[in-house]
Amino acid sequence: MRAYSENARREGKRVGFVPTMGALHAGHMSLVDYARSACDALVVSIFVNPLQFDRADDLDGYPRTWQADLDMCAAHGVDVVYYPTADLMYPQGFQTKVSLGPMTQGLCGAHRPGHFDGVTTVVLKLFNAVQPHLAAFGEKDYQQLAVIKRMVRDLDLGVEVMGRPTVREKDGLALSSRNVRLSPQEREEALCLWRGLNQAREMARGGKKKASRLKIAAEAEIKAVASARLEYLEIVAADDLTPLEVLDRPARMAMAVWVGGTRLIDNAPLD
Amino acid sequence: MRAYSENARREGKRVGFVPTMGALHAGHMSLVDYARSACDALVVSIFVNPLQFDRADDLDGYPRTWQADLDMCAAHGVDVVYYPTADLMYPQGFQTKVSLGPMTQGLCGAHRPGHFDGVTTVVLKLFNAVQPHLAAFGEKDYQQLAVIKRMVRDLDLGVEVMGRPTVREKDGLALSSRNVRLSPQEREEALCLWRGLNQAREMARGGKKKASRLKIAAEAEIKAVASARLEYLEIVAADDLTPLEVLDRPARMAMAVWVGGTRLIDNAPLD
Repeated sequence: MRAYSENARREGKRVGFVPTMGALHAGHMSLVDYARSACDALVVSIFVNPLQFDRADDLDGYPRTWQADLDMCAAHGVDVVYYPTADLMYPQGFQTKVSLGPMTQGLCGAHRPGHFDGVTTVVLKLFNAVQPHLAAFGEKDYQQLAVIKRMVRDLDLGVEVMGRPTVREKDGLALSSRNVRLSPQEREEALCLWRGLNQAREMARGGKKKASRLKIAAEAEIKAVASARLEYLEIVAADDLTPLEVLDRPARMAMAVWVGGTRLIDNAPLD
Repeated sequence: MRAYSENARREGKRVGFVPTMGALHAGHMSLVDYARSACDALVVSIFVNPLQFDRADDLDGYPRTWQADLDMCAAHGVDVVYYPTADLMYPQGFQTKVSLGPMTQGLCGAHRPGHFDGVTTVVLKLFNAVQPHLAAFGEKDYQQLAVIKRMVRDLDLGVEVMGRPTVREKDGLALSSRNVRLSPQEREEALCLWRGLNQAREMARGGKKKASRLKIAAEAEIKAVASARLEYLEIVAADDLTPLEVLDRPARMAMAVWVGGTRLIDNAPLD
């Protein structure tokens, strides 16, 4: 992998990178298309990273659609698919961890122990192997995006981290590899996340500044669905993810909701 | 810094790197001379890294000899001296840490809390800025060398880590920036480390395999000096630093000894 990138760099090419866990969908492809347009050589990684799963059943049940993934990559002009094995990534004696402080402790970090250590460690490894100039991440995993931006700055990595807007179904549901697990009824109920976010956004646009009021309004949309269980719902600063009580700077509402046995996350800016 | 290295790499040059905390002596210069001979472009960093000091007085009192350092680098053909400030290395909001597991928990790691987290974090940052093909480290800091080799493998860094033999005074004292703190009498007493190591090496050469016997013999040399206080003395596997009871594979004896107010470390192979 590194030989490919070093060669591309020597030829003056700009290397773009989209790290994924496979089960590719239109959300991933929007990242691929963006990186394709901004770079000369395009790498996609497919690696279901055991280090970032806090539950074994979630790892075992994570959707795997290898051949469809490869076809999609080919159709979208990907030059290289990098798919290391877990044995190659975490060999005998492996013991290095990359961890961040406060930014990984709230939101998903508070509910998925070790998750972000797994994310930052694997993303750094992938960056080191792929040596990209630019890496694209979806805003759907907003905390992940913010954490990786911080890691890149903190570790003096020469990678431009580009966040791209969440891709949604027509009715607003954020695309996610985990959506295939939803039953038809749960699929309907899952819209409560989007309704909650929109409720808060409209209030923010209408001049409401108190985070607690926006949160109560958004939570009401989740609570209105019997099978939905709220894991967290927060309003945080868009850059460093500090919880906000008042919308006095660029802010983001983020939430995790269990719909039946499936955990869904979503977020939106509050401008 | 990165622009320099990216340019050198594009020109097909091999970039060598010697990270230091300044107060350069012949030990550092042996690393510089080695890297000079093995590479086309040579970078030395000088950065007294606050993150790796567990005691404020040690950081404050660490020798700083800036102009002499620059002169030595110039005389030995160094192309670039990289000397970031602490503010540049650890700006507002910095929160990323690189840490290793078992390899950092024994030896110096057991006595200097946080020390190796500081070392691995700063070395990774320096590697990312300097982008070397090869980096040279002294065997005097043997645990540091082994930890950095492990980190480089674990994080898929494309850096060749080269360990180079400890440089010693004629009487055997390992060169160290901290030696300037020794009084003339302490300077004599400091030889107990070297005597202890030699005692153990001779026994090992003579066929003695039991680690406890070698440790007792080496400890006797330290205890024979009234002003010396043993911090630790261990025999570990040369590769992963596991404590050994029997010399059944390549082994290293390592020790830390306080002589007056100065902490000295040394180590040697037991073959």
